[in-house]
Amino acid sequence: MDIARYMKEKKVLIDSFMEGYFSRTIIPEALYKSITYSLSAGGKRIRPILCLASYEACGGKADDAAPYASAFELIHTYSLIHDDLPAMDDDDLRRGKPTNHKVFGEGMAILAGDALLTEAFYLFSDERHAVASIPHSALIRAINEIAGGSGMYGMVGGQAQDLLSENEEPDPETLFFIHKCKTAALITAAVKTGGILACCGEERLAGLASYGQNAGLAFQVIDDILDVEGETEVLGKTAGSDEKKKKMTFPKLYGIEESRRKAKGLIEDAVASLTAFDEKAGPLRAIAQCLLERKS
Amino acid sequence: MDIARYMKEKKVLIDSFMEGYFSRTIIPEALYKSITYSLSAGGKRIRPILCLASYEACGGKADDAAPYASAFELIHTYSLIHDDLPAMDDDDLRRGKPTNHKVFGEGMAILAGDALLTEAFYLFSDERHAVASIPHSALIRAINEIAGGSGMYGMVGGQAQDLLSENEEPDPETLFFIHKCKTAALITAAVKTGGILACCGEERLAGLASYGQNAGLAFQVIDDILDVEGETEVLGKTAGSDEKKKKMTFPKLYGIEESRRKAKGLIEDAVASLTAFDEKAGPLRAIAQCLLERKS
Repeated sequence: MDIARYMKEKKVLIDSFMEGYFSRTIIPEALYKSITYSLSAGGKRIRPILCLASYEACGGKADDAAPYASAFELIHTYSLIHDDLPAMDDDDLRRGKPTNHKVFGEGMAILAGDALLTEAFYLFSDERHAVASIPHSALIRAINEIAGGSGMYGMVGGQAQDLLSENEEPDPETLFFIHKCKTAALITAAVKTGGILACCGEERLAGLASYGQNAGLAFQVIDDILDVEGETEVLGKTAGSDEKKKKMTFPKLYGIEESRRKAKGLIEDAVASLTAFDEKAGPLRAIAQCLLERKS
Repeated sequence: MDIARYMKEKKVLIDSFMEGYFSRTIIPEALYKSITYSLSAGGKRIRPILCLASYEACGGKADDAAPYASAFELIHTYSLIHDDLPAMDDDDLRRGKPTNHKVFGEGMAILAGDALLTEAFYLFSDERHAVASIPHSALIRAINEIAGGSGMYGMVGGQAQDLLSENEEPDPETLFFIHKCKTAALITAAVKTGGILACCGEERLAGLASYGQNAGLAFQVIDDILDVEGETEVLGKTAGSDEKKKKMTFPKLYGIEESRRKAKGLIEDAVASLTAFDEKAGPLRAIAQCLLERKS
């Protein structure tokens, strides 16, 4: 299968949904501009694509789940805007452009993040996007997944520990905690949500959860490696910033080679989690490989 | 009826639910402390109480709706934490205590706010709190109300306009926009949610919406008046701060007496919206009067 084409098609689906959704200028306009600036800054849409691939692996039709898959990009984008703030990671560059607060000021950046997080839940509960094949019970369960993956036991908890662990000597337990919560939790929620919306059953849902946890953790390990080895122009964010901020990373604890080996093992585990799935999970399997080989 | 006693009983119900909910220390502990610091800082729980009063007005039993009503306090608390940040209103004092970022730092305060907002949706979708009388369809609709009232068309939009309007000459259109969005939208969502969870029907829901909009707007007008006339010790926040920050307020545009007259008219309109309700809406009617007469 041509996975690059698959991912491009799904990215177009997501981008086109989000463009339509945010086509009406909200008031105040500065908030609208701040929100759409970051949403249209050229993200790869990995989380929505994973959600759609998982939905299709369970027999769903991607178009039906596009609004829900897009919600994960809203949450991811909010997290980047808040993480880049001076009080957090203090980054000036994101996806090759000045960070949100550099353009719109810190107050508006905080509010744009707040709005994006809230809008994700608006999307999930908006009857206008309802389709008969997705029952209310599945939506409720998906909302619970997304909130769990993003909240104090997930992404926010991980980011808090990440902040607290700057300048600390890395230890495996803390490092795994940060990466699992900060990155893998939302990716896992996106993958599981695809299954939940397709009413996939508990056995396959457990497989998707394991896929998401392993692939999500690998994703962050690769991120750590790229921060060491990548170039600012290709990454679209400042290379070497983890070292500068004394972040707790896989390369710092294990070195580059061992980190790469661990990422490879995690991707193998992710793919091995999909034994209960047929060829419709081909894209999920191939995306895992892409995550390992990505350069940005 | 003894409305002070009613409100106290409902506050105890909410406080006790939230205490139980946050009794398990989450990791990292600094995030947990930041969250619980602001939640337990002595809020009056007006929004959850209104939600419960509305639920009871439609025949519901308050205990069943306590988790959902509490979600409004999580959202209100998040909004206070973020609004108090230096990049926003830059306040040092809230409910008589140092503001969250003064104690835990700006980064942790931003994350505590993010976590509280997210947790509100976790609560609404958590099957552990499910009761047979509240169908999934009602929960989905309530989630949409809460997200709509809190997001870019509601509270966040209002706070953004509030920020942008500092130092501007007040005009009625902008002033009403700010107050409706910043304050009345979430209060309206809380009141409507009580009706939605009780499956109250469209006619009564429209009455609750009108009650919420009018009472919510009056609430903010009174807030503006208290900022001029109140004392820091009674308010628990710095009196006179609107004037200092050149905020757009009702007293600034209309003067104190006319503002008070407007608040009184709004409360009368709120109560008049409840014609489709019987004596079970007594607390809603009495609370409206309390909002008008409050001193803090």
